[in-house]
Amino acid sequence: MNPAVDISIGDYIETERARVDQELDRLLPPESEPPESIHKAMRYSVLAGGKRLRSILCLECGRLFGVDDEALLTAAAALELVHTYSLIHDDLPAMDNDELRRGKPTSHRVFGEALAILAGDGLLTLAFEVTSQTAAIPAELQLRLINELAYALGTRGLIGGQVADLAAVEGKVSEDSLRYIHRTKTGALICASARTGALVAGAPEADIARVTEYGERVGLAFQIADDLLDVLGTEQELGKAVHKDGDQHKATYPAFYGVEESRRIAKRLVHEACEALARYGGRARRLQELANFLITRQS
Amino acid sequence: MNPAVDISIGDYIETERARVDQELDRLLPPESEPPESIHKAMRYSVLAGGKRLRSILCLECGRLFGVDDEALLTAAAALELVHTYSLIHDDLPAMDNDELRRGKPTSHRVFGEALAILAGDGLLTLAFEVTSQTAAIPAELQLRLINELAYALGTRGLIGGQVADLAAVEGKVSEDSLRYIHRTKTGALICASARTGALVAGAPEADIARVTEYGERVGLAFQIADDLLDVLGTEQELGKAVHKDGDQHKATYPAFYGVEESRRIAKRLVHEACEALARYGGRARRLQELANFLITRQS
Repeated sequence: MNPAVDISIGDYIETERARVDQELDRLLPPESEPPESIHKAMRYSVLAGGKRLRSILCLECGRLFGVDDEALLTAAAALELVHTYSLIHDDLPAMDNDELRRGKPTSHRVFGEALAILAGDGLLTLAFEVTSQTAAIPAELQLRLINELAYALGTRGLIGGQVADLAAVEGKVSEDSLRYIHRTKTGALICASARTGALVAGAPEADIARVTEYGERVGLAFQIADDLLDVLGTEQELGKAVHKDGDQHKATYPAFYGVEESRRIAKRLVHEACEALARYGGRARRLQELANFLITRQS
Repeated sequence: MNPAVDISIGDYIETERARVDQELDRLLPPESEPPESIHKAMRYSVLAGGKRLRSILCLECGRLFGVDDEALLTAAAALELVHTYSLIHDDLPAMDNDELRRGKPTSHRVFGEALAILAGDGLLTLAFEVTSQTAAIPAELQLRLINELAYALGTRGLIGGQVADLAAVEGKVSEDSLRYIHRTKTGALICASARTGALVAGAPEADIARVTEYGERVGLAFQIADDLLDVLGTEQELGKAVHKDGDQHKATYPAFYGVEESRRIAKRLVHEACEALARYGGRARRLQELANFLITRQS
């Protein structure tokens, strides 16, 4: 079922977010289940109120090819479990050493480092557990989703990007490694989110290729927008520390290309992302709106 | 193919270990692949020379029901990937803060904390990736293996045990929580290893139940033997720091029951484990020898 198309993009995101949050609440073990502390820590970070962008991209790319939300929802929510795992581990003192995330103290600040590490581990593991028991999807497809997810998260994806990003703090990065970091650290999971939707819908390879093109462009544009917000946004708007990238000499687009050129690149990427879905006409409207929203958002 | 049955248990383990190490070498990305540092860190810890107990239990429980090693080897090796992930994270300063593992400096001592955390994350992710692309096993079975693995590793298994173990350092533990910690922290993955072999072989539920009984007993006995080695062994023999459990007031069997009674419990568990497989006669000989070996080993 497609949600009503006459509501604004903001209201649309709110509605979708509520559905995803409900599924996340269902998938996470209750706080009352021992050991309580780890379930509390997992819930604290997952339910801290993210945008659920990855889930929404997954849901909307599935709907593009007519699949029922029922079949998509668990796989879509699992993307937020792994996204949160990556945030918890990235925020650790040994990594980016962040104190604030989604407007709240980071996991290790509330629960201590040991529980924060284990909460991340637990979320990563839970994502594979729930994706392997989605009765609404045939076994071959579940396996493919697991394989895609693991690849996007592994050392050829998100972890590889995080490693390169940490290394980049220590020295000046080249244009190539800047692209590599953005493509893997953020882009791989966003692209996998879009692909997951199309895969669950059983879309033909040619359609999956278009969704992949969309996902790659959106993933990169999203990270550039994130870099720009770090330069231009306030801590209050973002719910996390700002100006950290510049202070730490991190690999960012504004640092490399300047603010104006970075904006132009992000806009071009979003334009290309929308073009990739042009042949789907009005059915792709939400996905095109989402792409535009990502680079104009203030948090 | 069963290996020659006339070789000693020590030689048998050596032969099996070499096969598992070869598969692990095949599954791990090469050190030369960027980002090199993470692949180097993953290989350093995985190939540091463990006993490969979990893989061998998996292989031998599969052979018990006549399955070819080809179908088993990747799933068996994946168990060592996740075991190593758990060791790397357990050894971190925020957790057990260990400096020595398998006779070598721990991951964070060599590569720093950030890379050690990411190497653990990478191994956990890789295990799900390779288990989801084992062409020799039907899709439904691969899914079940992934689900079993995730459950054994999750907050109802290994992670739950680690959380309880960390909490136990801070206060006196009850007999119940001592059992819970041992059952989950070590037992869950060892039991899942044995079950994985039987599952790949397509063994009927009654047989899987017997293998599960064997796996549960062996898992608990193994951890008690580990506790005893911590009290009685030397750092040189074990390749890791000893007497740490007592110093940290950790939840151990010797601390709770004393050395002699702990030995009796471990022996009884191994006896029960062997009994569970009695109906398989000579075919289960290696599994029974393995159970006995685990509580008589010196390292």
